[in-house]
Amino acid sequence: MKVSLNKRILNRNDECAQKNKAFFENHGVLCLNVISSPGSGKTTLLSRTILALKNKLKIGVIEGDIKTDTDAAKIRATGAAAVQIETQGACHLSAVQVHDALKQIEAAEKDVIFIENVGNLVCPSAFDLGEKKRVVLLSVPEGDDKPIKYPGTFAGADVILINKMDLIAYIPFDLDRVLTDIRKINPHARVFQVSAATGEGMQQWYDWLCDTIA
Amino acid sequence: MKVSLNKRILNRNDECAQKNKAFFENHGVLCLNVISSPGSGKTTLLSRTILALKNKLKIGVIEGDIKTDTDAAKIRATGAAAVQIETQGACHLSAVQVHDALKQIEAAEKDVIFIENVGNLVCPSAFDLGEKKRVVLLSVPEGDDKPIKYPGTFAGADVILINKMDLIAYIPFDLDRVLTDIRKINPHARVFQVSAATGEGMQQWYDWLCDTIA
Repeated sequence: MKVSLNKRILNRNDECAQKNKAFFENHGVLCLNVISSPGSGKTTLLSRTILALKNKLKIGVIEGDIKTDTDAAKIRATGAAAVQIETQGACHLSAVQVHDALKQIEAAEKDVIFIENVGNLVCPSAFDLGEKKRVVLLSVPEGDDKPIKYPGTFAGADVILINKMDLIAYIPFDLDRVLTDIRKINPHARVFQVSAATGEGMQQWYDWLCDTIA
Repeated sequence: MKVSLNKRILNRNDECAQKNKAFFENHGVLCLNVISSPGSGKTTLLSRTILALKNKLKIGVIEGDIKTDTDAAKIRATGAAAVQIETQGACHLSAVQVHDALKQIEAAEKDVIFIENVGNLVCPSAFDLGEKKRVVLLSVPEGDDKPIKYPGTFAGADVILINKMDLIAYIPFDLDRVLTDIRKINPHARVFQVSAATGEGMQQWYDWLCDTIA
């Protein structure tokens, strides 16, 4: 019973995700679904990316949080458009919530829509939002065992950003082990080592983004 | 439909949680449910606590992870008993899973059972496991906005450990803001500033633990 109902919820989500996907394709908009644990640096990543590329690309951000519009306010401070979805307890965004936000953010006019999912390394990976690519962050302070402990989320990524590389001197973190574990789970994802806070390594991410749009 | 089924799942969980609660009370076992984001330091907290108190207390640990028995192996290396539950994708532990682990870990013979929940700052807080007290970790690198963004989990805590205090020099983190935000959400929780990695501040946590057992 539980399984069949969960399947029904997922099917309903997938139907709407297909609508979102068609919308993005019809309007030539690149949509990226950004997933990580709480505090891995998703908002900092997006803020720095907007500041670096805003003269080149029209960027909009859909923010998912359980509570507060803190993150949307941070994004707006960079000059980009942002819509906040407060999930009121729900642990992930749904395709319907994204669909409802598209008009408000004037998505059809944008080059890129980032969806910053609720901070959660588990549940968001089960819900297709209609994105073209999925971006997963792992921050150095979370530890080097996270890919093998949360394999589903890492397996579904098109890009994996190892963030907060500026903290690696202060924390035991076996980078070689992480890179090896990621390759076993996901041989195809692009992996970039960055610090969204300092800007270190971000150029390769910007290049990937611009190449993916082109 | 979704709501009523979720309620049914929660009711079934709560029934079993009541059984676990009775078991712990009947056997004079203190059960603590430890919740945080991935990588906040739950396993390091428990390992150091066991090493500090194992001559004084009989401690068992029930480990919840989506995949791998990495954490149970770390706990066993400290000399304590540990049972690993692999949730195979599920984002939280259930009371039934805990119930099934009690015999295996010889819970009736212990003074303390720690349940290390799946790394997730959202879903575990909705599922009573029959614990006496709930312990929530927030690590400094996750950022000072987490209590207001994930209020449900912080509101349900009996103890909140602000962990990785050894990293505060390297990261922008407004401790006063965090303490103020926590007090608004949860006026009654005990709040300790610790580093499970270095041992800083851990004595107050050990004292609380021993006082709560006595």
